[in-house]
Amino acid sequence: MKKSILILFLLSCFSSVLIAQQKQLTIKDAVIGQWQDLYPSYIKQLKWRDKTDFYTFTENNNLVQSGVSSSKSDTLIYLNDINNVLHNNTIDSIINFPSYTWKDKNSIQFSYKNHFLVYNVTSKKFDINISYDKKAENVDVCDETFNIAYTIDNNLYIVDKTSKISTVTNDEDKDFVNGQIASRNEFGIYKGTFWSPKGNYLAFYRKDNHDVKNFPLIDITKREAEVENTKYPMAGMSSEHISLGVYNVATGKILFIEGEDTTSEKYLTNISWGPNEKYIYIAVLNREQNHMKLNKYDIATGKLVKTLFEEKSDKYVEPQHTLTFLKTKPNEFLYQTRKDGYNHIYIYNTAGKLIEKLTKGDYEVTDILGFDLNETNLFYVSTQQSPIERHVYKVNIKTGKVIKLTKKTGTHNCKLNKNGKYLIDTYSNTKIPRVYNIITNKGEIVKNLLTSDNPLKDYTLGEMEIGTIKAADGKTNIYYRLIKPVNFDPNKKYPAIIYVYGGPHAQLINNRWLGNARMWQYYMAQKGYVMLTVDNRGSANRGLEFENVIFRQCGVNEMADQMKGIDFLKSLGYVDMNRIGVHGWSYGGFMTTSLITNYPDIFKVAVAGGPVIDWKYYEVMYGERYMDKPDENPEGYKNASLIDKAKDLKGKLLIIQGGIDKTVVFQNSLSFIRECVKNNIPVDYFIYPRAKHNVRGYDRIHLMDKVSNYFDDYLK
Amino acid sequence: MKKSILILFLLSCFSSVLIAQQKQLTIKDAVIGQWQDLYPSYIKQLKWRDKTDFYTFTENNNLVQSGVSSSKSDTLIYLNDINNVLHNNTIDSIINFPSYTWKDKNSIQFSYKNHFLVYNVTSKKFDINISYDKKAENVDVCDETFNIAYTIDNNLYIVDKTSKISTVTNDEDKDFVNGQIASRNEFGIYKGTFWSPKGNYLAFYRKDNHDVKNFPLIDITKREAEVENTKYPMAGMSSEHISLGVYNVATGKILFIEGEDTTSEKYLTNISWGPNEKYIYIAVLNREQNHMKLNKYDIATGKLVKTLFEEKSDKYVEPQHTLTFLKTKPNEFLYQTRKDGYNHIYIYNTAGKLIEKLTKGDYEVTDILGFDLNETNLFYVSTQQSPIERHVYKVNIKTGKVIKLTKKTGTHNCKLNKNGKYLIDTYSNTKIPRVYNIITNKGEIVKNLLTSDNPLKDYTLGEMEIGTIKAADGKTNIYYRLIKPVNFDPNKKYPAIIYVYGGPHAQLINNRWLGNARMWQYYMAQKGYVMLTVDNRGSANRGLEFENVIFRQCGVNEMADQMKGIDFLKSLGYVDMNRIGVHGWSYGGFMTTSLITNYPDIFKVAVAGGPVIDWKYYEVMYGERYMDKPDENPEGYKNASLIDKAKDLKGKLLIIQGGIDKTVVFQNSLSFIRECVKNNIPVDYFIYPRAKHNVRGYDRIHLMDKVSNYFDDYLK
Repeated sequence: MKKSILILFLLSCFSSVLIAQQKQLTIKDAVIGQWQDLYPSYIKQLKWRDKTDFYTFTENNNLVQSGVSSSKSDTLIYLNDINNVLHNNTIDSIINFPSYTWKDKNSIQFSYKNHFLVYNVTSKKFDINISYDKKAENVDVCDETFNIAYTIDNNLYIVDKTSKISTVTNDEDKDFVNGQIASRNEFGIYKGTFWSPKGNYLAFYRKDNHDVKNFPLIDITKREAEVENTKYPMAGMSSEHISLGVYNVATGKILFIEGEDTTSEKYLTNISWGPNEKYIYIAVLNREQNHMKLNKYDIATGKLVKTLFEEKSDKYVEPQHTLTFLKTKPNEFLYQTRKDGYNHIYIYNTAGKLIEKLTKGDYEVTDILGFDLNETNLFYVSTQQSPIERHVYKVNIKTGKVIKLTKKTGTHNCKLNKNGKYLIDTYSNTKIPRVYNIITNKGEIVKNLLTSDNPLKDYTLGEMEIGTIKAADGKTNIYYRLIKPVNFDPNKKYPAIIYVYGGPHAQLINNRWLGNARMWQYYMAQKGYVMLTVDNRGSANRGLEFENVIFRQCGVNEMADQMKGIDFLKSLGYVDMNRIGVHGWSYGGFMTTSLITNYPDIFKVAVAGGPVIDWKYYEVMYGERYMDKPDENPEGYKNASLIDKAKDLKGKLLIIQGGIDKTVVFQNSLSFIRECVKNNIPVDYFIYPRAKHNVRGYDRIHLMDKVSNYFDDYLK
Repeated sequence: MKKSILILFLLSCFSSVLIAQQKQLTIKDAVIGQWQDLYPSYIKQLKWRDKTDFYTFTENNNLVQSGVSSSKSDTLIYLNDINNVLHNNTIDSIINFPSYTWKDKNSIQFSYKNHFLVYNVTSKKFDINISYDKKAENVDVCDETFNIAYTIDNNLYIVDKTSKISTVTNDEDKDFVNGQIASRNEFGIYKGTFWSPKGNYLAFYRKDNHDVKNFPLIDITKREAEVENTKYPMAGMSSEHISLGVYNVATGKILFIEGEDTTSEKYLTNISWGPNEKYIYIAVLNREQNHMKLNKYDIATGKLVKTLFEEKSDKYVEPQHTLTFLKTKPNEFLYQTRKDGYNHIYIYNTAGKLIEKLTKGDYEVTDILGFDLNETNLFYVSTQQSPIERHVYKVNIKTGKVIKLTKKTGTHNCKLNKNGKYLIDTYSNTKIPRVYNIITNKGEIVKNLLTSDNPLKDYTLGEMEIGTIKAADGKTNIYYRLIKPVNFDPNKKYPAIIYVYGGPHAQLINNRWLGNARMWQYYMAQKGYVMLTVDNRGSANRGLEFENVIFRQCGVNEMADQMKGIDFLKSLGYVDMNRIGVHGWSYGGFMTTSLITNYPDIFKVAVAGGPVIDWKYYEVMYGERYMDKPDENPEGYKNASLIDKAKDLKGKLLIIQGGIDKTVVFQNSLSFIRECVKNNIPVDYFIYPRAKHNVRGYDRIHLMDKVSNYFDDYLK
């Protein structure tokens, strides 16, 4: 006690000196600064120039070029030059250099407003300049023909190089939706149109939403509030009927794969064109999500040619990767699946025969970067080194020999050039903010492009450590990240806050800059909190078994593991176990509310954002994968429901909701509040009126300030 | 300072003794207890037996009778007897004695579920037993014929004694609404059907809502939330078109007064039948609400016979009282208006000639109780004694002589018996919880029925005083009510909370039990707050000029007067002026939010419930009366709007909203929150998901606990 007073005294004596050396994170730093002033310096829009050993990036809004063997950089394209050509076409000036890709060695392509443009570096002119409707959405350009597919409202159109518009679909009934994302972005679906390799066909999703209920959201920006309905099929309810149409650009005819479907509720995932445009491949998953068929269909008839292979599970099958056909062997393709427990790369042929398992072991492949020339080696990223690191490897297709290309501990992100000779390797770890190197395809560093300074060097941050503890099963190692308060004194007792997500498809702890923590956690450590995060079982990149412990019992094992985090906090000796808080969003909001209601004597203060309160209010695709239907798993739904738990709440709980959240609809949080009111349980609530599932932009400063203040008011 | 420590010491020494003597109000006491255990004892359903000097009331669920000259009470009707007859009619038992009225000397009438019943005291049988549709709403029984008018959905029906149902209207289009309240209960409109004196006609409102926009409210109790639309015309917007239909019971024909109206937006208020059923009188008010015509219409033709008189104002005219025709002179009627500055009673004849101004002076008539036999004297209630008291007077119609009948200071509420000889006088004042006396029509007390004990005698309440201060105009006396903290010590500094309403049609301070304060204010005084309420200019029962200072500038003068309350608090010397809070609901929520944003250095903590944030979001009738249309008064709307003021907020503000509030729609509060977020201003918010404009029942304990905790957390 006396010691701490002495320290306080000394601190106050030297405070003016200290202030000069040690800057304090503000809430704005903590929220926005991490991505702005306090972001490690970076190279903008760094890309390999197509089929060369040159790379380009933007600087002062011009495109600059350098090369593997160059010691200098040259400006390749001045934005002014582009703007001059734009003006000839009476298009407004571009302010910031556009988001480009190299179309070929001598031209970049980009979209600007409602124009698609291919700019030739040599001629300084547009090779292609196509305008499309200003109301166009889901714009998808065919690389071969430059035909542009787009949607307006619920229909699909194509405009060609000559500005001729073709109407692909013409549905007046808005419950038919064409060319848009299906299945709410689950199953690796992130678009609704798929050009065939040569551009002769356009495959597209067609959703029949007649049986899907609307969830009403309210637009308060109108003088009199208006309803915005969003199709939101909840677990167990009637869902959308998905068909895949194939539009023949030459004939203008549409043929539906296996006919148009208006009754069944299967999922058509990972649409993949065969190289010769004769076949299309679909990973067809049943609504129960436990039986996937990889089907090959004939474009001429729309009929099934063959089921290449099937995957079944007593829990769930989750296809997430399209097929990548080999150029050198057009009847073989790369396929990724977790069927053997971890995500690995396989080569199958179009007869459905397994040719080779390219990667194997108790780790996950997280990305495929591409082949070298002649497809001798495949480059990929995996967790083989450590679940919290990412390294790049190459595997020889013939020999199966694997070589690790990235050396430095941490998280690597590489871009392979087209000829497969070089990679731009960007990495960071908990000590290194960011480094850009060019490495050869053997892993040798040939050029350093940038080594970022530590943008936080003037700040004193709480000490961060990453380690493992045992999960509640007593055997699995799970990762934690601990941030100690600034000016930590082991003889003091500190309040602690658990920041949690806990659901599938996310990993919060990595060996990268800041340990992958949001800077807010350091901000809170600066205020004197111990900040802990635990990636419980159920979270990402640890394999199928690690993840699927949540099946039919969301929250149960995740909470058990988080409570191991509580034991860990206790073991530290410097945490005041009477001042434990918890905060999380979305699945983390569910976890937060679950923890404070299930362990009311442990958690004193909680802030839950956009929480799922009862899985029966969540959507079909994600919900049924993990929880089955409500009538198939009544016990699981009941155990996970927080409505009945509201009466057990003892601590301070603030629930925050986006006013137009289409992901976790407000019925969740309001049902919980209603139950608290009925049981006379104090609870707090806040709405961000115009926020969707996350509060973004500058509004997020307000949000995190509110979250921080809540802990300061009741936990500090 | 030392003194207060001594007191604390003494208090702690004697605390066990004190606890025995002094009970503490709980939050439940403060919210529900005021109307239950802590309510002064009362006589249930006390009524004069028709045309007699006997009175009846319910006791142990039976009907008991006593008389002016009786010293004892007798059970007149056993509920069992009624239930026995009910069973003969296969109707379920009544649990609590029904809400009855004396139909005549020997029979009571009441409704039970979907039955209308007249029970004969002598025969112990039902003289009348009519069942109506279980879905019936707006049930209106004709006293003469026992025909029962009712609505189902948007249509109007009549059922007669023989159970024959007549369909009065048959609109499939739900935008036509028949037989329901028009103009959202403004202008004294509290029902939509009007039986003629002999029951040959039924007048009814017909609303054409085609031009009125819907406000969407959300029902979260369904599995997938559903929209409940409510017709909500906002100030300046298209409003409902109101017609008055007259249904001829004999012919089944409907005739519309001046034809059916589908275009204009005038108000048809205070529908009054002439005694002979030949004419109907309507106070027709233009949409601008500054020109009223009292019109007499011929029932045979629906045409205007004559405009009896008109009232105009450069501010507003607000007709609120139907005509009461004299029995002895059927061509004369009582009429109430504030045209001379205060609400007074006038006698006009049906030619529109003013016969007599019955009451006059700088006070308001607040109620008419009725005549004695032969209509010699009219009994009424007024504020003549004091604006915060209510006394009963009688005025001789011929001589104009006024006699005050109630003597005791305070608030009297009287029931006159039919022969005009006696009144039951119920009163209370700040010292007397409740007394029931029978007095003669000369004011002599002839019998005491009940003198209630003080239900709070075991509690120590903060000392309450009522007084006046000068309004901001420097001349008007306005009333305040101050409640000091329990165990008040003038040498201490206390935080203070202003409880405010401030809008028209309400008066918070009266010389009645508890000073008319909600018990929550005593609860807060018990916690150590000084509680102040000021009835600013704009509030009720002080005359037209006092009220209409708010015209076109809601909030301006009301705030100026509340700030005089702040000066008053300062003058007391024992209020910590750095700890001033404010709380109010509805107009009081508007005032609360106005005060903390306009005087951010005065008010540190505020809780605003269901606040109007911008009058453009409020409804046509009330909104335009006080503020005109937005395009007629842009400055007034802008000044009153709190959206622009959000950025000025410095203190802690909690806004509370009913999730299905149809009165002050949630767009108000959410717009303010949105603006706070945009400006990065901390603010708090809470929704009672299933509450309308007020949070009622047991949920209100949760509400007031939340309000109290907010002050405890940030002001105490």
